[in-house]
Amino acid sequence: MNMTINYPNGRPFIPHHKEFSNRTQVASHKQAAKNKLVFGNRGMTLESDINASNETYLVQNIAVIHKKPVPVQIVSVDYPKRSAARITEAYFGKASTTDYNGVYKGKYIDFEAKETKNKQSFPLKNFHAHQIQHMEQCAQHGGISFVLLRFVLSDRIFLLPISKLSVYWNNQKNGGKKSILLKELEQDGYEIQYGIAPRIPYLNAVDKLIELEKQS
Amino acid sequence: MNMTINYPNGRPFIPHHKEFSNRTQVASHKQAAKNKLVFGNRGMTLESDINASNETYLVQNIAVIHKKPVPVQIVSVDYPKRSAARITEAYFGKASTTDYNGVYKGKYIDFEAKETKNKQSFPLKNFHAHQIQHMEQCAQHGGISFVLLRFVLSDRIFLLPISKLSVYWNNQKNGGKKSILLKELEQDGYEIQYGIAPRIPYLNAVDKLIELEKQS
Repeated sequence: MNMTINYPNGRPFIPHHKEFSNRTQVASHKQAAKNKLVFGNRGMTLESDINASNETYLVQNIAVIHKKPVPVQIVSVDYPKRSAARITEAYFGKASTTDYNGVYKGKYIDFEAKETKNKQSFPLKNFHAHQIQHMEQCAQHGGISFVLLRFVLSDRIFLLPISKLSVYWNNQKNGGKKSILLKELEQDGYEIQYGIAPRIPYLNAVDKLIELEKQS
Repeated sequence: MNMTINYPNGRPFIPHHKEFSNRTQVASHKQAAKNKLVFGNRGMTLESDINASNETYLVQNIAVIHKKPVPVQIVSVDYPKRSAARITEAYFGKASTTDYNGVYKGKYIDFEAKETKNKQSFPLKNFHAHQIQHMEQCAQHGGISFVLLRFVLSDRIFLLPISKLSVYWNNQKNGGKKSILLKELEQDGYEIQYGIAPRIPYLNAVDKLIELEKQS
């Protein structure tokens, strides 16, 4: 089946390919498919809220953090006369890094955002080994790296630093449990309360991480 | 005309879309077209050398710096049974930020790389207003932002910090000259000598920028 992709807000995608920004990217195929077929627009809430929050942080001159473009492997391109090059065959790729990065208070910021429909735990299968490794490397070089985890049904969001995520990840690799319990996130993570502008004020939690770093 | 895109080294592109990294991205359509039609593989040298250098820095545990995926606006996707989703219509986008970013010695690193066939000057038309603005914003928040400029014919590479590039850029906006002279780059930039691993050791020049920052 051949389907047109809609924007997160449900508007149909209209290409204005002369000039557009990374910020107006469509979601990955999985998200887009999920979106259309199962959840309506719900699956896109976290991504669009984070993008809007980053835009607010940028406009308010607080931080420069962007979502990276979706990686695409291009196979065929058509170059029509007098109009824009058209990609006619391409495939979605799996990112080797994280979705978001940038700079805040002189610090390198690097994170990934994920959602679950579970109520009491966050499955670790949402992450890939190379993403965990990337976040560990960023932290090792003095960056601040974390995941934003959202429980869709209760609409609660937690920031979990990579240092804590790594513990659960390694534990799982050694035969431990396959998810992080909500009560563990309440302990190890920083819950983020929705705001107006920014909608998801996650840099408040980053401030706490910076504060902790200074103390240690 | 419908053409297959080759890798920088001239090997034909073979999609292995189950899992691949940002690092093996094909070039933008302009570069790819240029590549095939005019310059052979020469136009890709800088990008592939920088990617290889970043890989070396990563493996040597010196820095975590990646090229961002090429921004693509996706219009149509086909979901065949039992095989990977296939993008059947998409267009190249213009990035609102820069091509490379990451973390080095706790610093946020953000840069763009450009080439010219000119001998004595580097045309400012290689940059877009939104890229300059992005680099200025990164610097303002404590990041280290710069451009790597390569003269193709003499194969000389210079690192020019955004603080210096902004002067030329603003001067041009106010009716000044449209390019940076080679002798100005010799003065304001840091020339980078090719190495073996990394091939383009641009972080040596970044070390000088960090040193200057400490002194000021």
